Amino acid sequence: MGSQSDLAIMNEAAKILESLAIPYEISIVSAHRTPDKMFDYASSAVSRGLKVIIAGAGGAAHLPGMTASLTPLPVIGVPIKSSNSIDGWDSVLSILQMPNGVPVATVALNAAQNAGILAAQIIGAFDAEVLKRVADFKEKLKEKVEKGNSDLQSGKA
Amino acid sequence: MGSQSDLAIMNEAAKILESLAIPYEISIVSAHRTPDKMFDYASSAVSRGLKVIIAGAGGAAHLPGMTASLTPLPVIGVPIKSSNSIDGWDSVLSILQMPNGVPVATVALNAAQNAGILAAQIIGAFDAEVLKRVADFKEKLKEKVEKGNSDLQSGKA
Amino acid sequence: MGSQSDLAIMNEAAKILESLAIPYEISIVSAHRTPDKMFDYASSAVSRGLKVIIAGAGGAAHLPGMTASLTPLPVIGVPIKSSNSIDGWDSVLSILQMPNGVPVATVALNAAQNAGILAAQIIGAFDAEVLKRVADFKEKLKEKVEKGNSDLQSGKA
Amino acid sequence: MGSQSDLAIMNEAAKILESLAIPYEISIVSAHRTPDKMFDYASSAVSRGLKVIIAGAGGAAHLPGMTASLTPLPVIGVPIKSSNSIDGWDSVLSILQMPNGVPVATVALNAAQNAGILAAQIIGAFDAEVLKRVADFKEKLKEKVEKGNSDLQSGKA
Amino acid sequence: MGSQSDLAIMNEAAKILESLAIPYEISIVSAHRTPDKMFDYASSAVSRGLKVIIAGAGGAAHLPGMTASLTPLPVIGVPIKSSNSIDGWDSVLSILQMPNGVPVATVALNAAQNAGILAAQIIGAFDAEVLKRVADFKEKLKEKVEKGNSDLQSGKA
Amino acid sequence: MGSQSDLAIMNEAAKILESLAIPYEISIVSAHRTPDKMFDYASSAVSRGLKVIIAGAGGAAHLPGMTASLTPLPVIGVPIKSSNSIDGWDSVLSILQMPNGVPVATVALNAAQNAGILAAQIIGAFDAEVLKRVADFKEKLKEKVEKGNSDLQSGKA
Amino acid sequence: MGSQSDLAIMNEAAKILESLAIPYEISIVSAHRTPDKMFDYASSAVSRGLKVIIAGAGGAAHLPGMTASLTPLPVIGVPIKSSNSIDGWDSVLSILQMPNGVPVATVALNAAQNAGILAAQIIGAFDAEVLKRVADFKEKLKEKVEKGNSDLQSGKA
Amino acid sequence: MGSQSDLAIMNEAAKILESLAIPYEISIVSAHRTPDKMFDYASSAVSRGLKVIIAGAGGAAHLPGMTASLTPLPVIGVPIKSSNSIDGWDSVLSILQMPNGVPVATVALNAAQNAGILAAQIIGAFDAEVLKRVADFKEKLKEKVEKGNSDLQSGKA
Repeated sequence: MGSQSDLAIMNEAAKILESLAIPYEISIVSAHRTPDKMFDYASSAVSRGLKVIIAGAGGAAHLPGMTASLTPLPVIGVPIKSSNSIDGWDSVLSILQMPNGVPVATVALNAAQNAGILAAQIIGAFDAEVLKRVADFKEKLKEKVEKGNSDLQSGKA
Repeated sequence: MGSQSDLAIMNEAAKILESLAIPYEISIVSAHRTPDKMFDYASSAVSRGLKVIIAGAGGAAHLPGMTASLTPLPVIGVPIKSSNSIDGWDSVLSILQMPNGVPVATVALNAAQNAGILAAQIIGAFDAEVLKRVADFKEKLKEKVEKGNSDLQSGKA
Repeated sequence: MGSQSDLAIMNEAAKILESLAIPYEISIVSAHRTPDKMFDYASSAVSRGLKVIIAGAGGAAHLPGMTASLTPLPVIGVPIKSSNSIDGWDSVLSILQMPNGVPVATVALNAAQNAGILAAQIIGAFDAEVLKRVADFKEKLKEKVEKGNSDLQSGKA
Repeated sequence: MGSQSDLAIMNEAAKILESLAIPYEISIVSAHRTPDKMFDYASSAVSRGLKVIIAGAGGAAHLPGMTASLTPLPVIGVPIKSSNSIDGWDSVLSILQMPNGVPVATVALNAAQNAGILAAQIIGAFDAEVLKRVADFKEKLKEKVEKGNSDLQSGKA
Repeated sequence: MGSQSDLAIMNEAAKILESLAIPYEISIVSAHRTPDKMFDYASSAVSRGLKVIIAGAGGAAHLPGMTASLTPLPVIGVPIKSSNSIDGWDSVLSILQMPNGVPVATVALNAAQNAGILAAQIIGAFDAEVLKRVADFKEKLKEKVEKGNSDLQSGKA
Repeated sequence: MGSQSDLAIMNEAAKILESLAIPYEISIVSAHRTPDKMFDYASSAVSRGLKVIIAGAGGAAHLPGMTASLTPLPVIGVPIKSSNSIDGWDSVLSILQMPNGVPVATVALNAAQNAGILAAQIIGAFDAEVLKRVADFKEKLKEKVEKGNSDLQSGKA
Repeated sequence: MGSQSDLAIMNEAAKILESLAIPYEISIVSAHRTPDKMFDYASSAVSRGLKVIIAGAGGAAHLPGMTASLTPLPVIGVPIKSSNSIDGWDSVLSILQMPNGVPVATVALNAAQNAGILAAQIIGAFDAEVLKRVADFKEKLKEKVEKGNSDLQSGKA
Repeated sequence: MGSQSDLAIMNEAAKILESLAIPYEISIVSAHRTPDKMFDYASSAVSRGLKVIIAGAGGAAHLPGMTASLTPLPVIGVPIKSSNSIDGWDSVLSILQMPNGVPVATVALNAAQNAGILAAQIIGAFDAEVLKRVADFKEKLKEKVEKGNSDLQSGKA
């Protein structure tokens, strides 16, 4: 993530990865304040054995796109609605609208949990065990919705 | 893709996958006009051996999100600026703003080529050969920019 | 509705239908989390004797449009401004901008009461008793405005 | 419709109603230029036997909402992207964002065909014959998509 | 104004008119809930001796434009950011984007005070005494800014 | 108007004033390129006998607001969609969103004709002859709409 | 700055200039309420020895652009999200979208600190001592990010 | 600039710098395709004697912000409306909304000429000769407006 202030949001990615038993590392690397570190981090990602990178940032959010420019690995971008953001449009468009050749897999505003799930899905495409965990997680969401509906029908909601 | 009219855009995904030697299938499946077929297509994707799904659609674009709700595989969404679109905002937001639990890896407006590259990157995360092809592709983009700059410096541009 | 969190908003539809003495059922059915249930719900609507369906959802709101794709009945869509929505634009555009052939009768952001009234108007088009109730309801709104004006003129407001 | 210039768009509603064998009348009535006529038209709609009203207008589009304020019948609004419109946002918001008590069933920008289909669905809710025609129409859309896909698979597209 | 809930905002127009000694009347008249009364109010404005009409409304705000369609007098529109407004864009565009022939003199979002000042300026164009009061009011604004600056320079701010 | 390129749009104001027999002058005065001339023009408007000022400009359009800051006369602003405008939003917001104390009577994007009509309405508020011309003009608009409708009904449209 | 209410935001510019040891003056000058003073202030800036002007304003923010029209010095504009702003878009577009010939160096919404840093960078381009202070400031930002990351890694964050 | 396709726009900066006799160099350096070159270019700018950098890019435009993160020199950003841009909003927000500590002096959409003028103004703040050229350029703009007005008054326009 680009800033310590993004931690509250980005922790959701960590939590879901943990619950899906996917090993991960988490770092604060700023495209604008520590560009050298960002270069090293992204350029060395393949050799360090990373499979997917999740990058979250707010405002003129350059971290996801710059990371994508420095590695052939898939990069997932989380637009964060920071203070003084223009309603989140700035981070959404700064991450989504990448030029041909350098895609960022963008998820919804503040949707760090979804970034974690997407990372698990990418890994799961080649790891049947992880794929099953993702399917199980989706099954639990389904049960929660059905529970909510049962409560509603029985007048508990 | 959701409609025959999306073919001109979505062909770019096919072309880049071909150039990266990634096998693929291409279909027209409409969330709103052939919902049963969409259900079958998405639900059977894992068992048919697909690894990644690219879904492109315009306007109130539900194909990517509905596909994602029906498979644990990673789904890449391509917002398409169709006629009568409100400047493309409708397809961008319909694809990007998915709820917790069901991410769509969204790329830029009309960026089918990037969807293809992202699919290759996802496969490349677990296939060193494909990863190398992605890295080579990026190298060629770099050379093209440098060639453009050389032409500019030598007065050819 | 698509989620238990939509209940506070969607209850307004239930309340107005009750006050207009229109029988109704209310369920939580998620396009993205319980797609099978949504399919069953919408596909069986005609045979179960429903006349109109009201579907409310937030973010990338696919429930109204997917329901409309699965039934020939009129579907009323309520865009809901959920947390992390981009100011409600996402749900408005995801519901409104449906492709040719599959309309959703969209009402204003969070306007579940209006969805209930519209449902009553649709039924009222073929049921003189219900039409009268709608007309009476509008008469009461008028009186309320006139009462507000009287208070203002007499210095009570 | 509010202006002669809306005819090209609004004719799509007439055409689909014709193809679904729904009798209709078509008029130019301007909220801003012929307000008296609009009042008479909307106020007398029930007594003249109308069941649904489709109102299309561009810019600060008041025709659908004002019609809805003058009749208990369901009113379908078609936002039209007129010249000097601000990208269609003006007509969309002027029609959609109606206050509590006076809904307009809004369809997508320029989607007059969908307005006609929605009118047929409303009538079909109480007329099994019309409902069947709507279902048949949707079936044809499905076949068209499947034909498009067949062409694509066989290399004709 | 269109609703009792607009009173807090619209009172600012009353206050400034009072302070500029311009006689006025204030009423709640809803385009959508009391359309007949709106018709009478606007149609009789010239004969009742009104010179300018200020109309404020939120959401799909039709009161200013409909009033303008029913009188040759100048109509000033105040867009109001009501609850469930889409950030005020709905009322701004519903009031501003009037078609050729029927202008509304639109002021800023919630700017009822400015509507009062504009009304005074319109009257002042033909009444030297009122024009002087407007000029004096502007002079006071100037002095207030200069006082603020003096405080800042002297360390009081 | 602020630039020679605005002439095509702003001429519509001149034409309608001519047709309503309102004497007027027309000038190019740029807030940003000829600020001194703008100051002189606006500051001397009252003493030169002007009653209303129409100011049209595009982009970051400061001419209407600055003119309003320099005269107690009513100022009508015409937002113009210039090349490189961001869809006209820049000129609309730069003209509309004036601070308390300094209103600009804003009309729709490119609506110079409406600016002319509004100017006539302002003059007409105190000149029965002009008011009658405005009413006659509106009557003609009405007839044109009714003629359009007759043509439609008789199959000529 | 244009108003006393902008002081809380604009003080950030003063603070950073102080910390970078750049001498400055701070004034409230309103384009709309004290236009004469604005003229004098901007026109005399070169002769008074100013090198850069920072102008912050909200809503239809004309202060930065008008200042730029009256001096050949570089002008930095700070869009301020004032009350009744339309999400800050009004001030952003009013300051950014200046016509050819009269640029304003616009910074992010409410980013008065960045305006101060940009002013220091402009001075630093020709003053090695100031440039060093800017570089040192950036170095401190870097250290702060790295400290945040260390805390995160060691479990303190 | 970030791409050869930006040359048509960015050439305007070169032309105005030439006409103001400011020496400059022009290069194509892509943040996303040639990140290493961008790092070298920006990091070495001070030591190579550059005083100001103009960076233009479209879409998710990261070149201006990344350049600013790598040099203490002032960086001017030109948002470019590229094909598949979402109306230019993406490049505007990606360049403008920089975080605290790393400003980019943003000019209007496609306004490369203004970027050149702003660069000249920055240099002119410390070079009386250049400042005079800027003042003369502005004088010529004024004369052009006045000529346009003369033509209009004499009926030539």
